[in-house]
Amino acid sequence: MAEKSRLSLNQITTANWSVAEAADGCARHGVLSIALWRHKIQEAGLARSVRAVKDAGVHVSSVCRGGMFPATTPAERARNIDDNFRAADEAAALNADSLVMVVGGCANIGLDEARKMVADGVAALVPYARDRGVRIGLEPLHPMYAAERSVLVTIGQALELAKDYDAREVGVVLDTFHIWWDPQVEKLIEQAAGRIYGFHVSDWLVPLPDVLMGRGLMGDGAIDNRKLRLLVEKAGYDGPIEVEIFNRAIWDADPDTVLTQVIERFEKFV
Amino acid sequence: MAEKSRLSLNQITTANWSVAEAADGCARHGVLSIALWRHKIQEAGLARSVRAVKDAGVHVSSVCRGGMFPATTPAERARNIDDNFRAADEAAALNADSLVMVVGGCANIGLDEARKMVADGVAALVPYARDRGVRIGLEPLHPMYAAERSVLVTIGQALELAKDYDAREVGVVLDTFHIWWDPQVEKLIEQAAGRIYGFHVSDWLVPLPDVLMGRGLMGDGAIDNRKLRLLVEKAGYDGPIEVEIFNRAIWDADPDTVLTQVIERFEKFV
Repeated sequence: MAEKSRLSLNQITTANWSVAEAADGCARHGVLSIALWRHKIQEAGLARSVRAVKDAGVHVSSVCRGGMFPATTPAERARNIDDNFRAADEAAALNADSLVMVVGGCANIGLDEARKMVADGVAALVPYARDRGVRIGLEPLHPMYAAERSVLVTIGQALELAKDYDAREVGVVLDTFHIWWDPQVEKLIEQAAGRIYGFHVSDWLVPLPDVLMGRGLMGDGAIDNRKLRLLVEKAGYDGPIEVEIFNRAIWDADPDTVLTQVIERFEKFV
Repeated sequence: MAEKSRLSLNQITTANWSVAEAADGCARHGVLSIALWRHKIQEAGLARSVRAVKDAGVHVSSVCRGGMFPATTPAERARNIDDNFRAADEAAALNADSLVMVVGGCANIGLDEARKMVADGVAALVPYARDRGVRIGLEPLHPMYAAERSVLVTIGQALELAKDYDAREVGVVLDTFHIWWDPQVEKLIEQAAGRIYGFHVSDWLVPLPDVLMGRGLMGDGAIDNRKLRLLVEKAGYDGPIEVEIFNRAIWDADPDTVLTQVIERFEKFV
């Protein structure tokens, strides 16, 4: 059983809560960590977001998200990199464990070219992040997002991209929804030892109701979250475990009720 | 440019056509090969299906599909294997290049256990198929189908499963919709040399409208079908290339119009 002390509320799970509401919610429910989304940070303002998590006494496990590097013009790519610098500033101010990268898809660009743009984008971001003490967490997304969200789709590919950098600068963020299917998941998690910056859990609903919004609470789907948690622990990761659920019904429900369920399911299935 | 002589109509693309209508359609449009689905063979009857493709003078590139091995009870698993024997009988009668395996998902079973059931199922099927001259084509499906349709999700995994058998008995069927995202696709196709039994094309629509029905005509999405066709050719495959499209609008359209478009797109994008 995973200790409740390791649970981190990824803010998207309670999508209707502001930064302050989510931070207060965590404090109220005894959840020690939170992951913040940039559109929510923007709504609140960075200074107020920093104060909110400080006042609530919660630790920031990650800022979601940087990345989205590929674009059809050099000007747009430069703007994307600049936006990643702002994301690194926010992660630094919030003292987050890492800045999570959803690297961007290949639609209108082509897979090989998009992958080059991602490598270039990460190379541009790392020195800036390093200077601010921000670690870059490369998150391989499920292959079904390759066209629209992330050409980075396997742990192996993320490690290949990370290996050019110091293990304290660039690592991987492992989300069970994205990696559970991989026939090599055991071997790859073992290889990720020393570079695991974050671990996310949720479940894969059956039938999958939607490409983006098909996640469920742990225990409601096909993923063996506990098995994967034990594998990342064996590889040395003992940090926060984020619960990150994209699901319209959960978003529309009362966030306090959702957080209560999240804690129950975390203790039972993670 | 791919030669039109290599085009095979996977019958699901013209889902409203019977076996005889699809075979006649191929003859009328100068398409030399066809892939038949078992529910259509059943509708027509096996003997009439055999006669229909003979009368039309079309070659059968594959029978879709065997597999679906995992089940919660031994009795059900035995029934599934028996159903695969029937599929092998049909592939033999139709003189198909291979019997395509969609191996089955892991919902209600668990991923590791389901993968064992698949290996056991293939082991039970191979001797039966061998005696009838039927080749077993393992088709890795896109990882988004792991829960509901196929725990076999990468070329590497399919090759690992195939390697216990003679390369003339068990091979792989590569479908661009299922494999295009794989960062190791070039290396894996190279490794598949000598075991490639079939090659399927379609496209990945953006945004993906549906998990099952999200395929489009070649040229309408994110897949570089030509690049992948050249890779399988480099690996020695020179057989039929099936166009297999699950898409409600295409299914509802006039099949003759669809087949005309398929031929155009095949010559332009494959």
